[in-house]
Amino acid sequence: MSTEYLGHLLNQNNSKIVLLILDGLGGLPIQTGGPTSLEAAETPIMDRLASEGSLGQIVPIRPGVTPGSGPAHLALFGYDPLDHLVGRGALEAIGVGLEVRAGDVAARGNFCTLDNNGKISDRRAGRISNEEARPLVERLNEIKVGKVEVEVRHLREYRFAIVMRGKDLGSDIADTDPQQTGLSPLAPKASNKASENAALLFGEWIKKAQDLLVEEEQANGVTLRGFGSDPELPVYQDKYGLKAACVAVYPMYRGVSKLVGMDVVDFDGEDPEDEFSAVDTIWNDYDFVFTHIKKTDSMGEDGNFVGKKGIIKSVDKALPALLALKPDVLVITGDHSTPARMRSHSWHPVPLLLWAPERGLPDQQVSFGERACALGGLGTLPASDIMSLALAHAGRLKKFGA
Amino acid sequence: MSTEYLGHLLNQNNSKIVLLILDGLGGLPIQTGGPTSLEAAETPIMDRLASEGSLGQIVPIRPGVTPGSGPAHLALFGYDPLDHLVGRGALEAIGVGLEVRAGDVAARGNFCTLDNNGKISDRRAGRISNEEARPLVERLNEIKVGKVEVEVRHLREYRFAIVMRGKDLGSDIADTDPQQTGLSPLAPKASNKASENAALLFGEWIKKAQDLLVEEEQANGVTLRGFGSDPELPVYQDKYGLKAACVAVYPMYRGVSKLVGMDVVDFDGEDPEDEFSAVDTIWNDYDFVFTHIKKTDSMGEDGNFVGKKGIIKSVDKALPALLALKPDVLVITGDHSTPARMRSHSWHPVPLLLWAPERGLPDQQVSFGERACALGGLGTLPASDIMSLALAHAGRLKKFGA
Repeated sequence: MSTEYLGHLLNQNNSKIVLLILDGLGGLPIQTGGPTSLEAAETPIMDRLASEGSLGQIVPIRPGVTPGSGPAHLALFGYDPLDHLVGRGALEAIGVGLEVRAGDVAARGNFCTLDNNGKISDRRAGRISNEEARPLVERLNEIKVGKVEVEVRHLREYRFAIVMRGKDLGSDIADTDPQQTGLSPLAPKASNKASENAALLFGEWIKKAQDLLVEEEQANGVTLRGFGSDPELPVYQDKYGLKAACVAVYPMYRGVSKLVGMDVVDFDGEDPEDEFSAVDTIWNDYDFVFTHIKKTDSMGEDGNFVGKKGIIKSVDKALPALLALKPDVLVITGDHSTPARMRSHSWHPVPLLLWAPERGLPDQQVSFGERACALGGLGTLPASDIMSLALAHAGRLKKFGA
Repeated sequence: MSTEYLGHLLNQNNSKIVLLILDGLGGLPIQTGGPTSLEAAETPIMDRLASEGSLGQIVPIRPGVTPGSGPAHLALFGYDPLDHLVGRGALEAIGVGLEVRAGDVAARGNFCTLDNNGKISDRRAGRISNEEARPLVERLNEIKVGKVEVEVRHLREYRFAIVMRGKDLGSDIADTDPQQTGLSPLAPKASNKASENAALLFGEWIKKAQDLLVEEEQANGVTLRGFGSDPELPVYQDKYGLKAACVAVYPMYRGVSKLVGMDVVDFDGEDPEDEFSAVDTIWNDYDFVFTHIKKTDSMGEDGNFVGKKGIIKSVDKALPALLALKPDVLVITGDHSTPARMRSHSWHPVPLLLWAPERGLPDQQVSFGERACALGGLGTLPASDIMSLALAHAGRLKKFGA
């Protein structure tokens, strides 16, 4: 669903919009008949906002489709992910500060452990520490292939990002991670003619990397995945008339924000209070702030129902600092569900809270949770509709037609 | 809304999905303030499934659009009927065992009664019995026109199916039934150049049929409708990775199932228990079973509110046999609404129940009925989204993007 029609309706004013994403917010009851993490969490502030505002639930991509983090955030930002396929490699590379321009090819890399027969025995190289991985990444940066420029940067633990720059590079290349142990890494394979040159060069790079790592006990191999380039998305300023900032800890979310033209804020700390205090420091300079809390998702992926509940409570506790800034519109939702029971992302619709004291239409719901959201006044809507709702509630959309 | 993206996400496992369709399930209160047939029916099993699972309502085609049975089932199967126009003739012909290949033209035929002036006095030839109609159909099979092959097969009572095979046949031909008595049957009229030859040949065939039936008292005329060919739909195995079976009594539903690549199961009996017992016999050989109950619709069309309620109750009573098979996902819904008060199909959204004990997100609803479904956690969604939801809840869809 395209939102191009918004372009003709944009209206400038001094309103402020905050999009607060609790990653993987949605959940399932951990036991039949019980509450979800969100329903179980003590959230007096969110419950007040729910009772003053409107609830609903969002479908990240399409009904039944479980999203990765990249596409899920693109959808939240109003870009239909089926129309804008962006390789995770590009997102992570940009997120960690690498430049990815049109024509470059980026990928996510993993260190892995290869056995004597060249088969993968550990896809994550024993989850080696940052301290172990960093010097290895430095050595990888010395590899030269063809006439292209290659830059590698460490992400976290066994993960790195890689960008190749040069002429005639296409990014339609399949992952080299065979997704299971006991198999050899795959050779990079181009899905079209235009990407054959890059696939060849990446193959050469991987060979040299393997030679260079041969003495390592754990990280003696690499796999590459999520090949992609700059998708050249229309930026927030043009699409929505918003000067937008991103307050997020993790590279991936900083990356996807940059892709849509947000300024990424640097700050210390990782807790909700740290993030909201970072929002405070830039408050006067922006119309729109995207704030991202990662740990709800991490707890869900760890199967930690109680831990997820705790993170949600800690966000609620920190919220007064954000509310003190008096946003005109505050949207609280997730990019997707991550039920602790499933230990993974899921397709379930995500709870949505829209609070806009000036222009909101309240519904009958008085607490923030999955079942209340299913009965909310905003109904069930695609994630990509959130931005137009936020703009409208901020008084930033003109009438369509006379 | 295309669902082509699903192709990249398919995941194989051993899960079993059942799609149980109560034809024309949705209804209206027969008197103001009262319950619908579904709400009035005693359905302890469905109510338990509703309280453990999630409810919602589906829009068969588009809001306000009353569907015929063919398009309504295509939508349930995940094919947007606006993109896949299939003539009812093709569906019924295939359903009764006739071959309809690409390039053939099929139609539904009715015997009718013509008066001395050639005007229709009864559009259904006094609803002649199977016994009376069968020999007439045999005689129709002897008609020869042009260089094409024509095959006619009896359906039920005054209805038959006809298929024409040959060169240069198009199927964009208007119905010849004028839809009211006192008018002559219309000549078959092509809507495009490519169908002119076939329209001419069908015209010739009708003339010969009329000559041949001239001595009949009731069935002395014929009308043709729902001209169509094999739409060459992508089949279930390719589209969803599912080995699919159809358990249905009526030809039309068996036909549409064949069109999408389902195997049609032969069995004795017509009652819900007979159908569920047929499901049992093929359970180990299939991933997906579509089971179709016709009589809810027939009762609705007869204006029999109480009869429809009784059919729903009888399905509920038979359900334990289906549940004993332990499906991973059970979807219970209808192809459209058939309110007894309207004595016809209608556009109203259709109650939807999705039960998936492993992966379902329960809502607050505890009984299966129109009003509970309007408050259900699945929201209001296009019928063509059901398959992706079912696949997701069966663990058969991978993550989209990283």
